[in-house]
Amino acid sequence: MSLFNKKRSKLVLIITTSIISGSVFSEPPKLLTDKELNQVVQVREVALKSNLGFQILESLTTEVGPRMAGTPQDTLAVKWAENKFKQLGFDKVWKEPVTYDTWVRGIETAEIVSPYPQNLHITALGGTVGTPEGGVKAQVVHFENLQELIKSKADTVKGKIVFISNRMERTKNGAGYGKAVSARGKGAVEGAKKGAVAVIIRSIGTDTHRVPHTGLMRYEEGTGKIPAAALSNPDADQLMRILKRGQEVTISLKLGAHTGPVFTSYNVIGEMKGTSAADELVVLGGHLDSWDLGTGAVDDGAGVALTMAAASLIKAQGIKHKRSIRVILWANEEQGLVGAKAYAKEHAKDIKQHTIGSESDFGAGRIYSFSSLVTAKDMPFIAQMETLFAPLGITRGDNKAGPGPDLIPLYAKGMSVFRLAQDGTDYFDLHHTADDTLDKVDPAALAQNVSAYTVYALMTAQYEGDLVRPKKDKK
Amino acid sequence: MSLFNKKRSKLVLIITTSIISGSVFSEPPKLLTDKELNQVVQVREVALKSNLGFQILESLTTEVGPRMAGTPQDTLAVKWAENKFKQLGFDKVWKEPVTYDTWVRGIETAEIVSPYPQNLHITALGGTVGTPEGGVKAQVVHFENLQELIKSKADTVKGKIVFISNRMERTKNGAGYGKAVSARGKGAVEGAKKGAVAVIIRSIGTDTHRVPHTGLMRYEEGTGKIPAAALSNPDADQLMRILKRGQEVTISLKLGAHTGPVFTSYNVIGEMKGTSAADELVVLGGHLDSWDLGTGAVDDGAGVALTMAAASLIKAQGIKHKRSIRVILWANEEQGLVGAKAYAKEHAKDIKQHTIGSESDFGAGRIYSFSSLVTAKDMPFIAQMETLFAPLGITRGDNKAGPGPDLIPLYAKGMSVFRLAQDGTDYFDLHHTADDTLDKVDPAALAQNVSAYTVYALMTAQYEGDLVRPKKDKK
Repeated sequence: MSLFNKKRSKLVLIITTSIISGSVFSEPPKLLTDKELNQVVQVREVALKSNLGFQILESLTTEVGPRMAGTPQDTLAVKWAENKFKQLGFDKVWKEPVTYDTWVRGIETAEIVSPYPQNLHITALGGTVGTPEGGVKAQVVHFENLQELIKSKADTVKGKIVFISNRMERTKNGAGYGKAVSARGKGAVEGAKKGAVAVIIRSIGTDTHRVPHTGLMRYEEGTGKIPAAALSNPDADQLMRILKRGQEVTISLKLGAHTGPVFTSYNVIGEMKGTSAADELVVLGGHLDSWDLGTGAVDDGAGVALTMAAASLIKAQGIKHKRSIRVILWANEEQGLVGAKAYAKEHAKDIKQHTIGSESDFGAGRIYSFSSLVTAKDMPFIAQMETLFAPLGITRGDNKAGPGPDLIPLYAKGMSVFRLAQDGTDYFDLHHTADDTLDKVDPAALAQNVSAYTVYALMTAQYEGDLVRPKKDKK
Repeated sequence: MSLFNKKRSKLVLIITTSIISGSVFSEPPKLLTDKELNQVVQVREVALKSNLGFQILESLTTEVGPRMAGTPQDTLAVKWAENKFKQLGFDKVWKEPVTYDTWVRGIETAEIVSPYPQNLHITALGGTVGTPEGGVKAQVVHFENLQELIKSKADTVKGKIVFISNRMERTKNGAGYGKAVSARGKGAVEGAKKGAVAVIIRSIGTDTHRVPHTGLMRYEEGTGKIPAAALSNPDADQLMRILKRGQEVTISLKLGAHTGPVFTSYNVIGEMKGTSAADELVVLGGHLDSWDLGTGAVDDGAGVALTMAAASLIKAQGIKHKRSIRVILWANEEQGLVGAKAYAKEHAKDIKQHTIGSESDFGAGRIYSFSSLVTAKDMPFIAQMETLFAPLGITRGDNKAGPGPDLIPLYAKGMSVFRLAQDGTDYFDLHHTADDTLDKVDPAALAQNVSAYTVYALMTAQYEGDLVRPKKDKK
């Protein structure tokens, strides 16, 4: 039980009693005082004018650059994060080991051999096996989406290179991603079941550039492993045009991908100590790793930078807060939430101290709404938050917040989450590509994000309600 | 002397006489009749609704794809063009040989070795030598532009890799290109004079993608040859950020570029026969070659497709025209107007038959204005053209038209030129990059171009004035 909960034990008893007795009356937890609200306004406005977030992001993407899990830059990123937390005045900075198998990209080339010879821009999907020495050369069989492949007859697929062409839809909230990404995750498994020699997909992305989108794929126990790669969207368009001309299309594909040695990286953590409820934690953060193709500015340098900046700016204003504010920079999100799972395991004993969490892992677009996941008694506080978010152009959403990827393991253990929804209209133009670079980030939008995270972190750190999740949402 | 000129000899005499006598009165050449104007309107409107231009462009970029001079696709493009001209109903189709030295790209890689190791997206400039076996690895010395390099002291450059960072400005008419491109053309010569081991430039382009812009560079007699390459714009930004951090920056560069064997390609020509002045020529066209990185949709597949389509649509409407309309698809423009020079040499004997020319080699953006290069007596005709162009949103510009690149040799020999100015705002996002692909072309804008070229070609083919250039403009 947390400090607040101890202090509020009598109140909790009253509320519980009134719920049991069916009374509709219950005294809500104390809201933030005017003085506390003024402090929130103060740091919110400072953050909006500050370029600290962009400075941190520039530092990470320039001095470390791409930082795929298991590469030398993974280690550099950990050192960078420790140093940066210290420079930013965090009260406590530490790291927790995360060990994983690694994947090495190697060469990646593809070309149309016939009927119209030309090169293709392609990238290996994360986790794929390589092609045999000399590559694979085979006829292409096309499917509109994964379901069409699953429904197909094996004899149309056997010995061929499967091409899945589903096109991701551009949306503000990223909903198009979930609809399209199964081709990436499961294409190789479904292709292998029918005897395909490789699978290539249209990039899961919304841009029109020759920069293919990588991202994790998976194999399945008991199914053979075939190589998997993504064509850039213009190359996928071109392949479609060639296929439509009706001749057999032969592609040659070479992937040098392979597994590497086991590697130890770290979740890197910085904390600003709370006062009266220092053992209770408001969590924020992003993932420190990126894919190797770009410098990971929007995925997820932005999340790293803006959450570090938010906590640092609260401290810099000299504001004391009751709960502690913990910024977690997760290791190896991209290859399976590895750092997040390790964190949840390591912190199984103190999981209850994690009051609420919000991860930023959807780029650097402006935040337009927030959503919560609390019980009725905390709703007055959420209304208070609404007032403080409004000047940032952030409106109140629902009370059904879901976790950012790295919060899934903590969420699964019962932690409440808070969601600051970013405008992701352009996010999948860049996601997992070489184009994910600093120039794509609007410093003003990033500052708005930092400002929003100061509001979230400081308000939840000051609020004396327990912010637990509604019962039906607890797993 | 042309047929028209023969027929008008009496009139010309009168005009000449009146000019000599100082009279301001002279009878202008006969304008287009209402019937002829109606035919122009008819084909203009048909062209605007036709997707023939886009179909031709799709065919070229899909079935041939990239077609750099001297590659197997150069030969395929020539075959494609002959076949397409025939399919499109041209009265006469032929090719004229063009022989040149070739250049082979080879591998191209670069990385920052220190202080922050990371890969760079780079491409060799056309015509460059390769690096020595194993590449070059050297400290970077930075210059804002070519002039700064020229002004620098040799001892600051000797043994280093020169980096020229000038940034091309985005403009509608492409004026930013001329200001920036000298770094590409002359960087290696100026670097070599001071003992540099290689030169890398910021791409001459306006995009923000990891797709570097190639393009021709030159060496100079008596100056050593050093390798030259272009960084993508985000990579140039990144290198600038790294340099600003104040440490020595070392780059490793590998270019496998080298010369290839002498190669013979062809200017491919299609002609629609005129009636009463069949020996006089209205010229239009584009260049058939492209760089190798993209499929050359905007440079210059569009010019090829839209001029072929324009002539074909005039024929398809059953319209007879006095002058002949000749579509010339020039060989190897990119590596030095090689086909254009060969054409002018080959046609030295009949150069006077080339009445007027207009090349489309600036992408597929909408045409917004036209300019001419004629004497006062033809101005009533230009006013007539203005009326016919207006419904396409094309306004009248000046009477100082300059030649498209492949028309320079004919222009130099006295041919008049006509300019249909395209909106090139986005052209240099794509120019000479892997991103120059069909999806970047707006079919409606391309149809507007085709329509404009039908107006230009048909009106100049019907007009009985001689359309000669003002004397002071003749070379």
